[in-house]
Amino acid sequence: MNPSIITLLTDFGSQDYFVGAMKGVILSTNPLAHIIDLTHEIPPQDIHAAAFNLLAVYKSFPAATIHVSVVDPGVGSSRRPVLIECASQLFIGPDNGLFSWICQREGDWRTFHLTNEKFFRRPVSATFHGRDIFAPVAAALSNGAAPAEFGPEIDDTVQLESLAPKSRADGTLEAFILHIDRFGNCITNLTPEHLGDKPDCATLVVNDRRIESFRSFFAESSDDDGELFCLAGSAGFVEIAARNSSAAMVLGVRRGQPLLLLPKCEK
Amino acid sequence: MNPSIITLLTDFGSQDYFVGAMKGVILSTNPLAHIIDLTHEIPPQDIHAAAFNLLAVYKSFPAATIHVSVVDPGVGSSRRPVLIECASQLFIGPDNGLFSWICQREGDWRTFHLTNEKFFRRPVSATFHGRDIFAPVAAALSNGAAPAEFGPEIDDTVQLESLAPKSRADGTLEAFILHIDRFGNCITNLTPEHLGDKPDCATLVVNDRRIESFRSFFAESSDDDGELFCLAGSAGFVEIAARNSSAAMVLGVRRGQPLLLLPKCEK
Amino acid sequence: MNPSIITLLTDFGSQDYFVGAMKGVILSTNPLAHIIDLTHEIPPQDIHAAAFNLLAVYKSFPAATIHVSVVDPGVGSSRRPVLIECASQLFIGPDNGLFSWICQREGDWRTFHLTNEKFFRRPVSATFHGRDIFAPVAAALSNGAAPAEFGPEIDDTVQLESLAPKSRADGTLEAFILHIDRFGNCITNLTPEHLGDKPDCATLVVNDRRIESFRSFFAESSDDDGELFCLAGSAGFVEIAARNSSAAMVLGVRRGQPLLLLPKCEK
Repeated sequence: MNPSIITLLTDFGSQDYFVGAMKGVILSTNPLAHIIDLTHEIPPQDIHAAAFNLLAVYKSFPAATIHVSVVDPGVGSSRRPVLIECASQLFIGPDNGLFSWICQREGDWRTFHLTNEKFFRRPVSATFHGRDIFAPVAAALSNGAAPAEFGPEIDDTVQLESLAPKSRADGTLEAFILHIDRFGNCITNLTPEHLGDKPDCATLVVNDRRIESFRSFFAESSDDDGELFCLAGSAGFVEIAARNSSAAMVLGVRRGQPLLLLPKCEK
Repeated sequence: MNPSIITLLTDFGSQDYFVGAMKGVILSTNPLAHIIDLTHEIPPQDIHAAAFNLLAVYKSFPAATIHVSVVDPGVGSSRRPVLIECASQLFIGPDNGLFSWICQREGDWRTFHLTNEKFFRRPVSATFHGRDIFAPVAAALSNGAAPAEFGPEIDDTVQLESLAPKSRADGTLEAFILHIDRFGNCITNLTPEHLGDKPDCATLVVNDRRIESFRSFFAESSDDDGELFCLAGSAGFVEIAARNSSAAMVLGVRRGQPLLLLPKCEK
Repeated sequence: MNPSIITLLTDFGSQDYFVGAMKGVILSTNPLAHIIDLTHEIPPQDIHAAAFNLLAVYKSFPAATIHVSVVDPGVGSSRRPVLIECASQLFIGPDNGLFSWICQREGDWRTFHLTNEKFFRRPVSATFHGRDIFAPVAAALSNGAAPAEFGPEIDDTVQLESLAPKSRADGTLEAFILHIDRFGNCITNLTPEHLGDKPDCATLVVNDRRIESFRSFFAESSDDDGELFCLAGSAGFVEIAARNSSAAMVLGVRRGQPLLLLPKCEK
């Protein structure tokens, strides 16, 4: 039998004891758990960045993986701790939208409100539910507890804005910048399917700039530093990149910036 | 049988080969070791920060965990390499006080001076005992070697200052700031027990400021950004926090700053 | 049977989903793989820094370790993905010189061009061969596939400059600074053997400064901050260090800076 994989994604940074404490609690309950760090460098309290990175990575993991994600500005308030079953995987964390893009994409999920204190580490600290609720629940799950043992099913989880672009009557799609990575690449909420079978024809309009160049590779030849182009990014979305530069800087945009995909030309 | 857990805590940072080399040496001796990174971002040579983080995390780990901690400004000098048995766990590193707060709290420990070179990686580098002494000793321990095989027992290990606050005749406690985390929260050496059963009555005096507000939760309501308050922190100590701000900045304090806990009022 | 060790060394940083995605892909193919992070903080696209760190660490790992190294400025171009057998270990990554210093030192290696797409994750992203080629190939290898299954053997891999110092007629050795670590220590391409059996006699000339002091330990006594000295570093090379200071700053040098080892004096 394979060991249970438990991933961790947090905004705890890596200089304090927080991540180590979560690992210790997991291993105290399931010494065979296979703990995988996704990242602990999510910008503090940035739920959207956490939701994007989890969305970009979950499909790379096998069925039954348990993902513990703790970006939790509401810790200590009345926000609910939850467990979500979706895409044959399990997601544990605060009910603040962290997992909503995965649920939106998959379309089918079940959510359980974590109320059964028998699975918690006690006393439950007011400020560190990662260690005292989410980690021990993940370990108990990995030991074979069923989701329904942790609390009642609920159907009103917090949702972030929709990932689906909006269609105008003329065929234009209204989209937005979903994420900006550390290289300045701008990941949009458009997928390659939105560009259709002739991506060379696509025209994106962002901050009054038109982008009409679609590239297959970062290293494809061009001499023009800063030139903007689109590509099918590795997270499954259309990205805007700039040759040897930060597209976000060249465009002067931030996450959330609206953009348009114009109706296809006829080449 | 469960795999041996070996944790690593260092000031090596994560951009060089140092941590990887320690992991390779451990796995060369015990391929089944379960290596857990606590942190490698302790500020260079900051023994106190390492001691605090280890103190805050060891109780989250199961019995028999082996903790390898290398913050070692004296590497290459005559400072001793040691192995400490305490709280049913094992601690390996330089004898410079790293583990002394855990020993103080637990009150019962045994220390062995690592002198048996048969367990070392040879040749022993003058500058990298993490790889050449501490990692292979941890791996040998995890393979079943007994602590006494590594060298003679000693009883004069280096101790950091005491964690116990001092009592004045009038009941005032003299305490200090033990650690400042990356959010600016000031962890004191006071525990919730020092506040007694009416924490709302507690008055802390730090740098001429009085702090009289005790909160259960970070997210508890208040509109006053920068407002200072105390809470029972997740490391087991009283912390001073500031709403949406860094308490260390608001107070203008550094680690080691003295503070007073005044005798209880009668509400 | 021991689990397969797969190490990861990249320039992906730790704030995005990239490293997590590689881990997920590996575990999807081999849930028992033991994944070890070497570092993900190689400066972006810095092949030399990656090559040095891998050179400094591979000997600490046991036979059959699989090293996946992805510093890949040519991703998406025609640079070849390769698998190298060397020193009883396996190295997977782009053919851009990353592994050439290890091959040079060992003198004996075989290289396979990764062309068999049956081992790739599909579709292969144009920008993320770490996830789509290198990770799944490593996992398949760890499951027992033979190197020759992945593609044809080749013998024209990309080589970085030689690590061997050049000899002048008078016995002077021409060397260079191979790496500068985060403390400013300057690692040269000289080994302690080049200094012979009387290292106290050695004279290095770097940027018109003569360095004649050879130390066994960082902590050896001296009151002179900034004093330059050489030592046998933990990576197996002669390093130039400065007491309580950055040797690179004191010397005003960068990686690649030439230096001379003068013929031995007669003491």
